Amino acid sequence: MSSEREPAPVFDVGLLSPASADAAVSDEAIARALVQTERALLAAYVRIGCAPAGVLGEFDERLRRRMDAVSAPVLAAAAGHGGNPVIPLVGALREAVAGTAAAEWLHRGATSQDILDTAVVLQAARALAEADAALARVEAALAAFVARYRATPAAAHTLTQHSVPTTLGARYGRRLEAIADARARMAEAGAALPAQLGGASGTLASFVEIAGADGAERLAEAFAAELGLRAAAPWHTSRTPVLRVASAAAETVAALAAFAGDVALGARTESGELAEASGGGSSAMPQKRNPVRAVLVRAAGQRMPGLVSTVHLAAAEATDERPDGAWHAELPAFREALRVLLGAASGAAELAEGLRVDEDRVAANLAITGPLAVSERLMLVLGPQLGRGRVQELVDRAVGGEDLAALLAAEPGVRLDEAGIAALLDPAEYLGLAPRIADRAVRRAGEQPGRATASTPDAAAAPAEHADGRDPASTPEPPHEDHA
Amino acid sequence: MSSEREPAPVFDVGLLSPASADAAVSDEAIARALVQTERALLAAYVRIGCAPAGVLGEFDERLRRRMDAVSAPVLAAAAGHGGNPVIPLVGALREAVAGTAAAEWLHRGATSQDILDTAVVLQAARALAEADAALARVEAALAAFVARYRATPAAAHTLTQHSVPTTLGARYGRRLEAIADARARMAEAGAALPAQLGGASGTLASFVEIAGADGAERLAEAFAAELGLRAAAPWHTSRTPVLRVASAAAETVAALAAFAGDVALGARTESGELAEASGGGSSAMPQKRNPVRAVLVRAAGQRMPGLVSTVHLAAAEATDERPDGAWHAELPAFREALRVLLGAASGAAELAEGLRVDEDRVAANLAITGPLAVSERLMLVLGPQLGRGRVQELVDRAVGGEDLAALLAAEPGVRLDEAGIAALLDPAEYLGLAPRIADRAVRRAGEQPGRATASTPDAAAAPAEHADGRDPASTPEPPHEDHA
Amino acid sequence: MSSEREPAPVFDVGLLSPASADAAVSDEAIARALVQTERALLAAYVRIGCAPAGVLGEFDERLRRRMDAVSAPVLAAAAGHGGNPVIPLVGALREAVAGTAAAEWLHRGATSQDILDTAVVLQAARALAEADAALARVEAALAAFVARYRATPAAAHTLTQHSVPTTLGARYGRRLEAIADARARMAEAGAALPAQLGGASGTLASFVEIAGADGAERLAEAFAAELGLRAAAPWHTSRTPVLRVASAAAETVAALAAFAGDVALGARTESGELAEASGGGSSAMPQKRNPVRAVLVRAAGQRMPGLVSTVHLAAAEATDERPDGAWHAELPAFREALRVLLGAASGAAELAEGLRVDEDRVAANLAITGPLAVSERLMLVLGPQLGRGRVQELVDRAVGGEDLAALLAAEPGVRLDEAGIAALLDPAEYLGLAPRIADRAVRRAGEQPGRATASTPDAAAAPAEHADGRDPASTPEPPHEDHA
Amino acid sequence: MSSEREPAPVFDVGLLSPASADAAVSDEAIARALVQTERALLAAYVRIGCAPAGVLGEFDERLRRRMDAVSAPVLAAAAGHGGNPVIPLVGALREAVAGTAAAEWLHRGATSQDILDTAVVLQAARALAEADAALARVEAALAAFVARYRATPAAAHTLTQHSVPTTLGARYGRRLEAIADARARMAEAGAALPAQLGGASGTLASFVEIAGADGAERLAEAFAAELGLRAAAPWHTSRTPVLRVASAAAETVAALAAFAGDVALGARTESGELAEASGGGSSAMPQKRNPVRAVLVRAAGQRMPGLVSTVHLAAAEATDERPDGAWHAELPAFREALRVLLGAASGAAELAEGLRVDEDRVAANLAITGPLAVSERLMLVLGPQLGRGRVQELVDRAVGGEDLAALLAAEPGVRLDEAGIAALLDPAEYLGLAPRIADRAVRRAGEQPGRATASTPDAAAAPAEHADGRDPASTPEPPHEDHA
Repeated sequence: MSSEREPAPVFDVGLLSPASADAAVSDEAIARALVQTERALLAAYVRIGCAPAGVLGEFDERLRRRMDAVSAPVLAAAAGHGGNPVIPLVGALREAVAGTAAAEWLHRGATSQDILDTAVVLQAARALAEADAALARVEAALAAFVARYRATPAAAHTLTQHSVPTTLGARYGRRLEAIADARARMAEAGAALPAQLGGASGTLASFVEIAGADGAERLAEAFAAELGLRAAAPWHTSRTPVLRVASAAAETVAALAAFAGDVALGARTESGELAEASGGGSSAMPQKRNPVRAVLVRAAGQRMPGLVSTVHLAAAEATDERPDGAWHAELPAFREALRVLLGAASGAAELAEGLRVDEDRVAANLAITGPLAVSERLMLVLGPQLGRGRVQELVDRAVGGEDLAALLAAEPGVRLDEAGIAALLDPAEYLGLAPRIADRAVRRAGEQPGRATASTPDAAAAPAEHADGRDPASTPEPPHEDHA
Repeated sequence: MSSEREPAPVFDVGLLSPASADAAVSDEAIARALVQTERALLAAYVRIGCAPAGVLGEFDERLRRRMDAVSAPVLAAAAGHGGNPVIPLVGALREAVAGTAAAEWLHRGATSQDILDTAVVLQAARALAEADAALARVEAALAAFVARYRATPAAAHTLTQHSVPTTLGARYGRRLEAIADARARMAEAGAALPAQLGGASGTLASFVEIAGADGAERLAEAFAAELGLRAAAPWHTSRTPVLRVASAAAETVAALAAFAGDVALGARTESGELAEASGGGSSAMPQKRNPVRAVLVRAAGQRMPGLVSTVHLAAAEATDERPDGAWHAELPAFREALRVLLGAASGAAELAEGLRVDEDRVAANLAITGPLAVSERLMLVLGPQLGRGRVQELVDRAVGGEDLAALLAAEPGVRLDEAGIAALLDPAEYLGLAPRIADRAVRRAGEQPGRATASTPDAAAAPAEHADGRDPASTPEPPHEDHA
Repeated sequence: MSSEREPAPVFDVGLLSPASADAAVSDEAIARALVQTERALLAAYVRIGCAPAGVLGEFDERLRRRMDAVSAPVLAAAAGHGGNPVIPLVGALREAVAGTAAAEWLHRGATSQDILDTAVVLQAARALAEADAALARVEAALAAFVARYRATPAAAHTLTQHSVPTTLGARYGRRLEAIADARARMAEAGAALPAQLGGASGTLASFVEIAGADGAERLAEAFAAELGLRAAAPWHTSRTPVLRVASAAAETVAALAAFAGDVALGARTESGELAEASGGGSSAMPQKRNPVRAVLVRAAGQRMPGLVSTVHLAAAEATDERPDGAWHAELPAFREALRVLLGAASGAAELAEGLRVDEDRVAANLAITGPLAVSERLMLVLGPQLGRGRVQELVDRAVGGEDLAALLAAEPGVRLDEAGIAALLDPAEYLGLAPRIADRAVRRAGEQPGRATASTPDAAAAPAEHADGRDPASTPEPPHEDHA
Repeated sequence: MSSEREPAPVFDVGLLSPASADAAVSDEAIARALVQTERALLAAYVRIGCAPAGVLGEFDERLRRRMDAVSAPVLAAAAGHGGNPVIPLVGALREAVAGTAAAEWLHRGATSQDILDTAVVLQAARALAEADAALARVEAALAAFVARYRATPAAAHTLTQHSVPTTLGARYGRRLEAIADARARMAEAGAALPAQLGGASGTLASFVEIAGADGAERLAEAFAAELGLRAAAPWHTSRTPVLRVASAAAETVAALAAFAGDVALGARTESGELAEASGGGSSAMPQKRNPVRAVLVRAAGQRMPGLVSTVHLAAAEATDERPDGAWHAELPAFREALRVLLGAASGAAELAEGLRVDEDRVAANLAITGPLAVSERLMLVLGPQLGRGRVQELVDRAVGGEDLAALLAAEPGVRLDEAGIAALLDPAEYLGLAPRIADRAVRRAGEQPGRATASTPDAAAAPAEHADGRDPASTPEPPHEDHA
């Protein structure tokens, strides 16, 4: 346990997790939010007519000279005894305003959890807004990428092996949609964030004593309004708001990590299809260009599951009117989840904006498997004529090294000329709806409700031509709105 | 790895987790759903005019005689080689329909993941419906409980110690709201469940080959419609639908477990406030009445975080067009999460319906702390008159054993008669908005959108009197709709 | 909750997790172990002279006719009410032996947890033995592989990009050592597995009542001895034995998954260095050879963290003399962890035994980066002569496409002839201790203490020549025993 | 991502997790360890005769003036680009020693991971030593507690309900043993911690280039020796050492949390058996004495499972020669696990040292169930005489409120006088081996191998008398060494 006398050691500045040392969820930001929350309660008492208007000025003026007493290291060092930083915070604030009218109204009727939950929620809202801005960048950059490569044939992989071909646009369109969906979920979770004001047992008894039943309700509303949060019944031990933010953050990080995972595989030296604009160097090996952003975003995807499991556990164990451990377990895990989210979102923005394609390598990799990549198609097209067994035989011989086009040309049942055979075996002619899937992902990313900041790039909104020969804009939307 | 010759061992019938061996997500049910999914693809080919109508009859008739070949143990035993049960399933079905027109259309163009994902989603939808029905029972029973005990004073606990009093109704009202919120989230996740149909690489290339681009889209729509699912772009490696069901299930189980945790604490012998109607017995100790439902629901709350973490991880690692492990890791964890959900939901229904209160013990426990439970109130009421230091002194003497009422009666600054002092010290007079919080929880549980099955008990809808002397029905709702 | 009348649904036969449906930890095996445990208690009473010798014969004979009553599905179906299967088991056994002397001694003094914990531990011991046998296969096959490819140069990757070269033997030697270490840890955890016998509250009070204090101790020892387990103080709520098995299993699965991960990356079509002997096919794409074992073992590595987290949580929450949920949460997670272990171990054995190397592709991949793979070496060798900046310039030009050998030949400060330059740039001449690392891994795998079954292949024990020109057998071991 | 120009925000000083802001694993401590590790490599070059002895003096002197450049916030801020802090560290150190002989040898041949892994392991060793000292305090205090209350009868609970009685000493003896076991496991994991030195791909190629094959081995040994760590083969992607520390830490925290959980339940107002000497106060409720240490240690038990799951996952995903995310995911989770360990250990030490028992409440709680707590005994003693059914009837009547002693006195088959009946019904006469279990736990805690710091209190080593009438010192140990 920390000594209560010396400031807490500077525990974490991001040395081991540089991608996620974001100011928005730093201890210093939370310390400031705690002060802001105590001030909001004062302001709420003023609003409902209980406290004199002057208390806010007193509070601000006195506090200005005492900010050091409410800095994060000082509060942290003193938080050990009672298990939370609000106890020393209130002590320091009371000392600061001693002798003023504000002293009477400061923290009046509140419990530590009211202040700490509200401050954490406030920082969560800020973190979500910051993450949303980064995701808007991800979406814009990825939408442009998807639009540009909508019809670029590329090798697909299932269980590590080449499967029938896809396009770069279809692959990253799928990622774009998942990210846009997660962003919408985050917006939803962030919009509903409630302030916490319930008093010692979540009954508002102290506030009713001070202001009457209606006054207590008005106080809670004023308090929430002061902070731009939702007024809600006390949720001391119903951790749904925190759980939903954590779930949405985890969904977002999973979507970003899957995107980064595709980049990492595509950047692998043997693949060489993708690179980061500003790949990280190596002190020892001057030729290296590591896909550092992709690696860090993937790492975020591996850290998040453990954190979100703790937040879920804490919700399940939130018994009584304040539980015997679960609340204390939730807060650091929840904060770390926000931190991982912010690191992943800004990392993914850099990644998406700096993604470079080596189209020659894309084509060369597709050529490794060559016509065998469309062996499925042969079965579909030639199976009825030649029999499935015969098609399998021909494919087996091609796997063994024979030229598939020549085999087909020599096969009596195949009624195709050389060009017909070439077209049949061309991976670029077996892309299915891949370009259309890419186009719809771009459109949907631009259409998310309540999406003020994201702009869909023009290239995506109006692609000049479509490899599948169909104008998606003319698709009758209602019946297959969600469909590729 | 399983032998491919003998049926798989009967691995799990619920021996170690009796609460959650629900038929809806059993392997047998999934095996049937796999068959149903293959049939739906046949039916979709018929619907769009590709396959002759007779194939469905052929399929059904031939299959009737071969159901043993597609039983779960047989498929499981043969699933090891390729890593999934669809490969042997298709083999068995092909054998069954050999020589009929159905043989040509069976599984045509599909990949294993299309069938398995769709079948799992189908069973998930059924599991969610079953869980929803159980939750409706939980809500109905809990709403009646909350309405009945809305104003019953009870000791509250923070960090294990008595805090200012609450009411049983406020405590369980908070649980009721969290459960209702989670149920709504589950309904939302369940409503959006998409079928999976993308072919080998998620481009629908095979279906385009068979039916043209528009035909492929219509096929996917017909396939989904056949199963009552949503048509969607392929989501082979965008696991959002699965993730959201798992998150909603985890939120639900957390809400149920927190409820069960309160019951377990209240049932503890030293507390004795609550009991289960059908408490489990002990072979050795005939007097025991264990709160077995509460224990099992709590256990569900402890199992879920690990499972949901695996589902999140699998989503983050879902790279390529089918990943090299993550899909295989997701399925058993997701199914187990559904299983834990179902066990928790039905267990909680029994728990809520059979919850018994010993009101004498509730009152006796509140009396342990007696007037000290309202020491906060003394500080609020008497602090301004006597000074905070003096109030603290009196409370300290009461903690030391002196009679607080007598101390106050002897205190010059206290201008209250004996009855006034008794009222000041009466926990039942310091309940704040607790009854109102209970009432609103009951109302909100009844008001959830799309809630066809849940009925709010009359007792809750129209409580005869209100301890806080205010008719909640007359509360002007819009401004403090969410507020206690 | 399960109905108590019908047998439980066949919940899991491995349909969704075919790799791990192992008979050793099936419900049926546990049901048999439960019966065996009850019999061992009877036998212990006979051993210490309390019960007449005939009770065992009675038990065996009566039971033979009633095995259906103690089958897993029947016990599972009846387990819901009390929350564990021992209650119906004892009922069924009592009915079976009714009227015999065995009836008096059956389950006497025991609590459900005594029987269930002991049966689970017994199956855990069997699962560990089975896993150990599979790991012996992994080690033997991998040791032969490492010995064979000890000095085969291969591209190394850090953060997905080629780094300085390694050898196949060094890479897989590292995997071999981690697997051998984990296997030793598993053996240690398995050797210490204790029986559980403590009675209702873990005090052995009932057994003291029956047999006196010393008799109770002798009974516990006889009970453990009967099952080949360790006699130990009751550990009802000190879950260390279970925790250690789970941790060792998780360490093992992590080591196997990292091995499988390397294989999956090496098998990737663009890499093409590795293949599984019996790669899984695809119904749609006849040319595919999926590395199914590697994929399934990787999936095991992704499932285990969530399971082991639940076992840890259950240990932390194991309060009282039997907790209100944690014990019930632990059992299914622990069993699933064993199941995942067994699936991973047998899958890894097949994987290691069937691993095929395409040495041409290994060489070709190394050649992609060519001399730039040893740019670090240039800096070390030429930096002092040319200056670091000049070396960097030359490397940059080579990255830009110029021929590095020609650049060096033209560089005045480089005092090397053509052959010298070629040697300097040859990745095969910059392998460091890689072959030695491979050799030591092979030796250490053969030297693990208490390793009866693993045989070190001769090839590994006496490699004919060493690329680094040093006979590892002559290494003075004590000072750098663990060192490469 | 962090800006590279401004120092990183002070992210974490423990504001949200005051229990675990320990200096030993702070970023500042790790930054110092990084510098120490780079210095150790210089020193190793000196030791093996490569570098001139003067480089260490140069390094120390130059660095003294540049410590600000290698502070944690500065390194963290610059770590984002390349994904780890060693790249800017080496840059800053190179600048510091520019122009000296040290410049040539600094970081020579090393890769970032060599330095960072070694520095983290070094801090882990220090954290384990610090945790061990705290655990020695826990053991000493708990051993004294167990010895003192070895035979104090107390109500036991299974599934929240009173079970047959135990003693306080038996309950906490079980906790003591689990803690001692975990401490031994931690010592084992800590003793084996290896330095990391393998160069870019873990082959030591650069070191072989510099010093020859034997020289490279000697360098690695000297490097490890310089830091007091074990020399080992490179383990860049075999994370066993980290995994084992994390597992041992998790086992320890689970044992401590279970202990804290028992305290939290015993401190619950309705139970009132236990209190913390320095319980945390409440600003609002002056009479509260919260068991804050118990709550925080329990919270540690709820945080650890998620963290240990991430460390396991990272080990499973540690592919290639440095993976594409897993290493970056491991480090912060591992450090947080150490932090949680340290917080839990010091918290548990305060908890154990300050634990207070209210023996009257212990006795009063036992009396709630009264003679029914020994109903099992009645069945054992009277069952043979009266028949099980008749005993059950009598117990049922007692459950219904009748006086059990009177019922037995009136029962013809009971051949006991009033004193005999009283003794039969006395919970204190049905404690089984509880005192003996307590004694052995005390002895075993004192006997742990390599346990220099822990002292077993005399009271525990030589308890004056034993409730079970047997001197444990005379127990013939070998046959039942582990047995209660």
